[in-house]
Amino acid sequence: MHAIEKILAKNSGREKVSAGEIVTAKVDFAEINDLYLQTIYSFYEMGGEKVWDNRRAAFVFDHYAPAPDIKSASNHEEMREFARKNDLAFHFDTNCGVCHQVMPEAGVIYPGMIVVATDSHTTTHGAFGAMGTGCGATDMATILMTGELWFRVPEIIEVRLEGEEPKGVYPKDVILHVLGKIKADGAVYKAIDFTGSYVEKLNVAGRMTICNMAVEMGAKTAYMQPNDAVIEYVNARTVRPYEVVTTDSDFEYAESHIFDVSTIEPQLACPHSVDNVKPLSEVVSQKSIAVNQGYVGSCTGGREEDIAEAAKILKGKQISKYTRLVVVPASAEVMQKCMEKGYIQDLMKAGATITSPGCGACLGAHEGILAPGEVCISSTNRNFPGRMGSTKAEIYLASPAVVASSILNGCITDPREYL
Amino acid sequence: MHAIEKILAKNSGREKVSAGEIVTAKVDFAEINDLYLQTIYSFYEMGGEKVWDNRRAAFVFDHYAPAPDIKSASNHEEMREFARKNDLAFHFDTNCGVCHQVMPEAGVIYPGMIVVATDSHTTTHGAFGAMGTGCGATDMATILMTGELWFRVPEIIEVRLEGEEPKGVYPKDVILHVLGKIKADGAVYKAIDFTGSYVEKLNVAGRMTICNMAVEMGAKTAYMQPNDAVIEYVNARTVRPYEVVTTDSDFEYAESHIFDVSTIEPQLACPHSVDNVKPLSEVVSQKSIAVNQGYVGSCTGGREEDIAEAAKILKGKQISKYTRLVVVPASAEVMQKCMEKGYIQDLMKAGATITSPGCGACLGAHEGILAPGEVCISSTNRNFPGRMGSTKAEIYLASPAVVASSILNGCITDPREYL
Repeated sequence: MHAIEKILAKNSGREKVSAGEIVTAKVDFAEINDLYLQTIYSFYEMGGEKVWDNRRAAFVFDHYAPAPDIKSASNHEEMREFARKNDLAFHFDTNCGVCHQVMPEAGVIYPGMIVVATDSHTTTHGAFGAMGTGCGATDMATILMTGELWFRVPEIIEVRLEGEEPKGVYPKDVILHVLGKIKADGAVYKAIDFTGSYVEKLNVAGRMTICNMAVEMGAKTAYMQPNDAVIEYVNARTVRPYEVVTTDSDFEYAESHIFDVSTIEPQLACPHSVDNVKPLSEVVSQKSIAVNQGYVGSCTGGREEDIAEAAKILKGKQISKYTRLVVVPASAEVMQKCMEKGYIQDLMKAGATITSPGCGACLGAHEGILAPGEVCISSTNRNFPGRMGSTKAEIYLASPAVVASSILNGCITDPREYL
Repeated sequence: MHAIEKILAKNSGREKVSAGEIVTAKVDFAEINDLYLQTIYSFYEMGGEKVWDNRRAAFVFDHYAPAPDIKSASNHEEMREFARKNDLAFHFDTNCGVCHQVMPEAGVIYPGMIVVATDSHTTTHGAFGAMGTGCGATDMATILMTGELWFRVPEIIEVRLEGEEPKGVYPKDVILHVLGKIKADGAVYKAIDFTGSYVEKLNVAGRMTICNMAVEMGAKTAYMQPNDAVIEYVNARTVRPYEVVTTDSDFEYAESHIFDVSTIEPQLACPHSVDNVKPLSEVVSQKSIAVNQGYVGSCTGGREEDIAEAAKILKGKQISKYTRLVVVPASAEVMQKCMEKGYIQDLMKAGATITSPGCGACLGAHEGILAPGEVCISSTNRNFPGRMGSTKAEIYLASPAVVASSILNGCITDPREYL
């Protein structure tokens, strides 16, 4: 069996499961973000009284934090009231950051677990050898009542990543390149297992960046076998004992895609689709693309390592006049580490606007919205029309290094020029 | 003559002016914030072509920065286009902070000048011995075309502040106390000259806090004779030579109000009026007032000294559960200084939400909006219904020390308990 199948089997009390079966499995941790107040309403409508386990469910206020309007402030209040009533052991208010960053930091994510959250990017937690997936309000209400959810055991695709990144190429480039090949519908309701020598050596942040964007190919979940970096990270934080699960050597993938990372260049996902991916050099050789806003942030591109890359390029320089660079640390811990290292200071001196940790403008909520006709170069994970504001704005997705070099230059620029 | 009269006389080419006269005076610096896109429309409607002096006018994006919605993003774009076309030497984009903080920092505020901005709190600049006043879009468009504006020479009220602050009492308490006595309509279209031994020794931040709130009594402008702290601050930054103006010893004030600062306690402006001011001890002795949000920020309460007071109280502690503390540095320079000193770090460890410098939730724009029924303790300058979100929320105005001690304790608390 695959590790994911073993996790589903373990949590559903079975010896064995296989692709296509429907199982009802225990959820080890459930998370509701501030877009999903409906969860509480559904919970009560369905007869819910108390959350099944007050140490296994939490709210994270990330999409609208701090509250940009009365509606979101009211939603937060209703959620706080529910958290208080249920005496939830974990509560992540407006001071914490993006759920996919704050959950691992808080030690509730570990290998071999199932985590379900009201957010599609819950595939992120595959980085830790966990099975993570997103759901809607009704499914989440069911979990809050019973601690369980149904799953169709997914077919599993291997994405094997071999070799080492060239200079100026980052995990974000790798996943954009993969996405460009497999396409936005290439893994619908399947699981993606990222394997290969690149993944084996990859740090926690890089693993999270890659697993995060598995959902952009339609994947139900993502997986990476935990490496030493993951085990060290988890051991320093976990609130529970855990066991690492491994895939049997005779497991057969539904598909295998093999990539040589050493041949990848800096990538761009061009408007208006995540899989409209091209080598940056090819795009800018055809035309100069002026940018109005750079954005470094989100659950795929707002970690310490991302902000460090941007700071390295911008230290001692100034962003292009009449542009802005919005930097949104993925969590309070990330922001604090970035202050310790001086990255926030360097970025502010270069002209960056630093906002409070959270989802910010990634989903068009606030803190860096785009006007019609504007162009944004962004380290986030979606570039659909209207995603960050006006449907008449254009979003290019890229690594934080591309964001930094582009906003420095006023147009999309290969970061290798500044390394 | 009074210093303010001398400034008006100098800038209108007269020997002498007196209260009640209408003069047309040169404006030394004009500032338009991002609430006032109408200024540009009025400018063109009135036949404007080029700004009269590109070193004497600037935009500051502070009320909606970084853009919380498409409308404000579009407004910013139109303003950038105007700034570009007019080659404005100063431009303060979303990365700068509140206009009343960034203008002095940039060296465009100095003694003896006239500064006009599209913001009522332009009285702040009286702290520097400048004549500062707010105006609307049409008046501002006139300034941009001609470099001049008409003024009615104001009657001048003296507010004499003698003595020293007791422990736990700050400039914010002093101005709230004054406001409670003189009331919101006590100085309509008059100028307030703050004099006395307290003002003579006061630092720049405290002077700005006090002059800022002169407009809450209806004042057209405020004044404080520059002291050594002001001269040192200005000399380190000014972009122009200047001359300090002084009031003649035989000048007669329209009114004089004398306060002994040493007898003032921590103050509270209770909902829903800035002049509903009471000693904090009196209010909390009658009932406990639970708070949902603390807010440290704005042009009256978001400077380094304010954030320092909050950090001092909260260092090594945790804010009350299910409350939040929003801290909005008044400018990027303030935020950078507060990081250098470790205040931002201490506040984040205590659970604060730090946002990008700007006006934030002070005017209900974004970054900490209140839900119906919520109570906010705030270092800002207005507590009208709906000012920070819902008209059914309540805002208490106080010093940053009161904000910190209250959010620590979950209810409005005398900061002297924590000093």
